[in-house]
Amino acid sequence: MVVATSRDVARMAGVSQSTVSRALRGEGGMSEQTRDRIQQAAMALNYVTLETGRSLSTRATHRIGMVAGELTNPFYPELVEPMRADLHRRGFRTLLIPDRDETPVSIDQLADGSLDGVVILTALLGSPLPQALADRGIPVVLVNRELDGAATDVCVMDNRDGARQAAALIADLGHTEAAAILGPVQTSTSRDREAGLREGLGERGIAIRASMVCRGSFSYETGFAAMTALLNRADRPTAVFCANDVIAVGACNAAMTAGVQPGRDLTVVGFDDIPMACWPAFQLTTIRGDLTALAEEAIRLLTQRIADPVRARERVVLPTHLVLRGTHGSSANPRSRRRTPGGS
Amino acid sequence: MVVATSRDVARMAGVSQSTVSRALRGEGGMSEQTRDRIQQAAMALNYVTLETGRSLSTRATHRIGMVAGELTNPFYPELVEPMRADLHRRGFRTLLIPDRDETPVSIDQLADGSLDGVVILTALLGSPLPQALADRGIPVVLVNRELDGAATDVCVMDNRDGARQAAALIADLGHTEAAAILGPVQTSTSRDREAGLREGLGERGIAIRASMVCRGSFSYETGFAAMTALLNRADRPTAVFCANDVIAVGACNAAMTAGVQPGRDLTVVGFDDIPMACWPAFQLTTIRGDLTALAEEAIRLLTQRIADPVRARERVVLPTHLVLRGTHGSSANPRSRRRTPGGS
Repeated sequence: MVVATSRDVARMAGVSQSTVSRALRGEGGMSEQTRDRIQQAAMALNYVTLETGRSLSTRATHRIGMVAGELTNPFYPELVEPMRADLHRRGFRTLLIPDRDETPVSIDQLADGSLDGVVILTALLGSPLPQALADRGIPVVLVNRELDGAATDVCVMDNRDGARQAAALIADLGHTEAAAILGPVQTSTSRDREAGLREGLGERGIAIRASMVCRGSFSYETGFAAMTALLNRADRPTAVFCANDVIAVGACNAAMTAGVQPGRDLTVVGFDDIPMACWPAFQLTTIRGDLTALAEEAIRLLTQRIADPVRARERVVLPTHLVLRGTHGSSANPRSRRRTPGGS
Repeated sequence: MVVATSRDVARMAGVSQSTVSRALRGEGGMSEQTRDRIQQAAMALNYVTLETGRSLSTRATHRIGMVAGELTNPFYPELVEPMRADLHRRGFRTLLIPDRDETPVSIDQLADGSLDGVVILTALLGSPLPQALADRGIPVVLVNRELDGAATDVCVMDNRDGARQAAALIADLGHTEAAAILGPVQTSTSRDREAGLREGLGERGIAIRASMVCRGSFSYETGFAAMTALLNRADRPTAVFCANDVIAVGACNAAMTAGVQPGRDLTVVGFDDIPMACWPAFQLTTIRGDLTALAEEAIRLLTQRIADPVRARERVVLPTHLVLRGTHGSSANPRSRRRTPGGS
């Protein structure tokens, strides 16, 4: 797009550049007529004032707020980066807005008029934020995590079906003592993946014992600590479902530390298929969701919402599928057998 | 900080909130006197207009542009995240500005008046950008990479000394056939690490053969491809210095794929000490630079520059030191010996 400069506005309005600047800053020293002529020229040229970054004709700031967790958690960059790149191609800039347990993002941070729209990656079940943004007319899309009944566009993976596929694999390999390392209960991703896992195992007559279910953040540290604890049990599980790949990578590292080799001694299944999952060091068997497609759909939804605020709400669900690599194995492997008889 | 609202401005100026809004948008329908009174109230209260995000009295936008490479490259989040968090605590928001080979960042993207300052992580030797920003009076700090003679604040690690320490380790372990997987020649980091490596080896009578020097981007892919090529040589090296940890992690994964175990069959040394370096899967011997301290120093320099544009320029160099983990070993190990006699 060709960007008009204050020189173009000055030429069209027949005034000096400094008069343009003063007029658009709302300063005095000119007639209302001159000011009007400058405003009209600026609007006709779709001039974005250097001062405000806001187009006078469209009121657009061309800035999108992206609410995400820690970027050092390898999951977030996999969504943030393609969304940022897509927004960049469409002429938007990305403002990173952190959402942390200790400093959760607030409506005031997002509704200050400086953003054309908001992408939320960290929505918690029951959070009033997405609805509050929608109520104020701020375009918003939830990506990866969703809320029940939020009046916003949503783009997620088929978490439940993916976890059912993981459950089917675990059961088909003959495992009857399965464990799960899950994420926060307030996230739709962990909730739906847990539901799919239990459903898929239940259909095959397998129940997960309550003591075999660990919960924490979606982090390497959660996976490492939970796997360490599971492997210290006398009745250690033979298969561990991890609610995402970052947890699974932490879990695999813990297993290596304990001298347990995923795939040979223990089955580990992740979720997401982040690039690290296919590194030779891990060769993680996982459930693939297409994160690039998820990012693209989210930006499509958001930009369509910005262009047409009253369009029908969309909920996009992308398919998931099992990727077999190196961390699954039969329960018949002697080294993976339970050390003591354990109930199922 | 207490944030004034348009209600506060309206009360102080003795007008309605809608008049405040219209006045600050430069719209007509009021006397110049009223407009002046509103402007003065807004300035007195340091009111940040919702429309512009720019304080009327300080002209500050409270937005910092951060020019970084791909966030999916695990190095960048390790600097971006602590800098973003530090800026957040100081009341600034972070705008992510991508810098890619195919779309290098331009002065126009940064000097549009919407940023209070700029952090550049991706400076290339000879780039005119930092100087151009400084010439326009835009506060700028270079972090991690620097330029020769740039008139900006700079914060880097002691790359040369760190690489000398790596060279000393490699030499002390008895390796005489060393290889290097380096980053782009236009980066000060790769240049200085290469210089330190050659210096440290040279002092011990070891030269790196030209055919043992590989170059590419600072990426997993570079490390993987280069190590694969090195291990396919009849005269494979017994020690490989990698110009950063991301390259080293790629190199270690390639070694595992080739059935070569770093630490037992081959010495691999990285640089940076990103968190992944200490994962049990890698246990990377590396040169540690304190990335959190680097981030803190960079933001200190930038915010001091914003507060005092004419203060003396600073170049901060943080120390580096060797972290011994699991990927180094003696050249005496039989499996790491050269298959054919090779010159040094």
